[in-house]
Amino acid sequence: MFPREPLLRIEGPLGIAQLVETTLLNLVNYPSLVATCAARMRLVAGDSKRLLEFGLRRAQGPDGAISASKYSVIGGFDGTSNVLAGKMFDLSVAGTHGHAYIMSYITFADLPSTTIASPTDKTVQIEFKNLVLQKRLLFEDLGFCKTNEGELAAFVSYAQAFPNGFLALVDTYDTLSSGVKNFVCVSLALIDIGYAPRGIRLDSGDLAYLSTECRKLFREVDTRLGKNALTDLMISASNDINEKVLAALDKQGHEIDCFGIGTHLVTCQSQPALGCVYKLVEVKGNPRIKLSQEIEKLVVPCKKAVYRLYGKDGVAILDVIQMSTEPPPAVGKPILCRHPFESHKTCRVTPSRVEELLSLLWENGSPVRPISTIAEVRAHRANQMTFMRNDILRTTNPTPYKVSLSETLFQFMHALWQEYAPTRHFE
Amino acid sequence: MFPREPLLRIEGPLGIAQLVETTLLNLVNYPSLVATCAARMRLVAGDSKRLLEFGLRRAQGPDGAISASKYSVIGGFDGTSNVLAGKMFDLSVAGTHGHAYIMSYITFADLPSTTIASPTDKTVQIEFKNLVLQKRLLFEDLGFCKTNEGELAAFVSYAQAFPNGFLALVDTYDTLSSGVKNFVCVSLALIDIGYAPRGIRLDSGDLAYLSTECRKLFREVDTRLGKNALTDLMISASNDINEKVLAALDKQGHEIDCFGIGTHLVTCQSQPALGCVYKLVEVKGNPRIKLSQEIEKLVVPCKKAVYRLYGKDGVAILDVIQMSTEPPPAVGKPILCRHPFESHKTCRVTPSRVEELLSLLWENGSPVRPISTIAEVRAHRANQMTFMRNDILRTTNPTPYKVSLSETLFQFMHALWQEYAPTRHFE
Repeated sequence: MFPREPLLRIEGPLGIAQLVETTLLNLVNYPSLVATCAARMRLVAGDSKRLLEFGLRRAQGPDGAISASKYSVIGGFDGTSNVLAGKMFDLSVAGTHGHAYIMSYITFADLPSTTIASPTDKTVQIEFKNLVLQKRLLFEDLGFCKTNEGELAAFVSYAQAFPNGFLALVDTYDTLSSGVKNFVCVSLALIDIGYAPRGIRLDSGDLAYLSTECRKLFREVDTRLGKNALTDLMISASNDINEKVLAALDKQGHEIDCFGIGTHLVTCQSQPALGCVYKLVEVKGNPRIKLSQEIEKLVVPCKKAVYRLYGKDGVAILDVIQMSTEPPPAVGKPILCRHPFESHKTCRVTPSRVEELLSLLWENGSPVRPISTIAEVRAHRANQMTFMRNDILRTTNPTPYKVSLSETLFQFMHALWQEYAPTRHFE
Repeated sequence: MFPREPLLRIEGPLGIAQLVETTLLNLVNYPSLVATCAARMRLVAGDSKRLLEFGLRRAQGPDGAISASKYSVIGGFDGTSNVLAGKMFDLSVAGTHGHAYIMSYITFADLPSTTIASPTDKTVQIEFKNLVLQKRLLFEDLGFCKTNEGELAAFVSYAQAFPNGFLALVDTYDTLSSGVKNFVCVSLALIDIGYAPRGIRLDSGDLAYLSTECRKLFREVDTRLGKNALTDLMISASNDINEKVLAALDKQGHEIDCFGIGTHLVTCQSQPALGCVYKLVEVKGNPRIKLSQEIEKLVVPCKKAVYRLYGKDGVAILDVIQMSTEPPPAVGKPILCRHPFESHKTCRVTPSRVEELLSLLWENGSPVRPISTIAEVRAHRANQMTFMRNDILRTTNPTPYKVSLSETLFQFMHALWQEYAPTRHFE
């Protein structure tokens, strides 16, 4: 989405078209903003990391949260902790237990049962607690027996309920001296029995340091045991993560595989509002212009078409806005592109490919083609980004992407502007 | 709402109480944030100004916008432009037409009719357009005849439809050389016929300057006509208004009576998220504590009660958090209040009034008393603020309000902390 480009073109009876103004802006502004925020985080985190939307508790009410989940996935996130959004839009749902779950256990006496179902025969119960305690003794020299017993009991209980989904929040009391050690004991016991643990979640402290230390412990345990049991388990992290934190972690080096991002994603804290506007540009074939003292706010008049022109290397060179009545740019034919306001800035582009950006979605009260699925929109978004130069996608100080006018539209707009403004409105 | 004070206390079976965590946080965080944002704007704008919520187009989806409208009114706004929210919660609904409405008219030929219904007999039509043009001629020397004709035609048409609700957006072309002059002509014609115009809305430019110039013109017209027709009409303003803009306008001096605030209110741009948390503090009568390296994040253990202690002058001195089993503070009896973490900070308060802040709302699946109406909550909020010292309510650098612990809770928490942390979790 670029400044001054029409994103939606609505044609219809004036009254109806005015009635839908706020609805359309509501449905375009926040979704585009949060999808962009998600896409930027994906760019910074890289494609290999798993990104999860965790923002339900900070969104604008239940429905604001649903929008956040949906459009975060479109923007490049892998899933959400919002179960309802997952159900509504068939999104991947993921999360962990909370701190309160851990805090509700004090000792092993709080465990209703000490066994776990066999992975091969669910009717058979295997003693689990004692197996966990045996694992604990194996690493007594590393302080494994001084961990918080309530936390260990809670992990045992969680593993009993989700033996193949064991992902433990390890920072309730102390990540390194208690949480991750308790996790290791339960995981080794699960593996012995035939289950596969998932990993840990860090939710406080220095995430780079803690993730590195946790991975180090996993490796050390594996080295001692002479097998690859824990080294590749998932380390996920949450707690006030935003684009800058992702970049800083990346620079410092860390062992995090998965980020859970809530507040900064759903509230788009770095820019909490997107200012799309809805403007009348033509009535019965007559162009309209709203004058403004601020050139940035000037809306280009006329019913328009937008084309993206691609170079030989397949990369997008610029977008050109034309009157909808002009012939579209043709491949191999030079086209003069004008900066909308600075008349000395022109360029001539010979496109190797021309893409029309607006296409008919709805006519006479019905969609003219199937509405795209979330997966399709997500893939389209990802695909579109591959055609953009890296300096344009850079999250800090990017090169502005060129949005230009055709010569005809440029001349028309400036003539209208010249003629209209001084003679009719100013003294 | 103050740090570390329980805002809601939930008691129930552990599993159920954990299930509602995110729902409650979602329903507490954003509503409290936007109500606070609205209350701060009300503080800065003063009670005499009309404040309207205009944020639908920038909110997190349709429902996010509804929440914003509802809680803005609770926070001190007078109404909203969101018609559905108005209908759902019986809020005052207000707004104006948009720029596109003005732009859809070019000349008087676009007017379907030139007459207006008589205020005393709706079946009688009175010539209106010519009356407007007569008014225009009266002020030809002030440039009234050089205004934008399409804008004037649009104003005439709007006045025909809403003769008693004529509030015109005057900045489509140029506020001072066109918009406000056209407004004056139509308003004078309406008044002649027996209607009462409402006023203008400024949506761009320097709002302090433009509002002052518009008021000056109203006065000048009234002086010439020798009557008080326009001087007291409402001048409303919108366009990127936030707390700082309200303060700056106030400092500079302006003539704005009503502010329409959207983006900065609904996205709470100055602080887009509120970080309320939901913590387990007691299980079956046993206190729970979650340790944290960051003292600010430490949750006070135990089921608690909160009391607000008032001084002789009726102003709140501080809040004190106690174990729920302690006897409440008594009027006239000194109580020792401890800073939660800094043991050298204590104070002794002899309250003239004691208010318990938590009260039972819901028990065994049903509310125990009627749910308060929005008007009641709004009045409660306004009333509560009158008991707070001005330096605590100051929007910049306020004095922190004291939140303290009873001696018993202080000793208990610190003993638990001392005992629990080193022996069980750290090496």
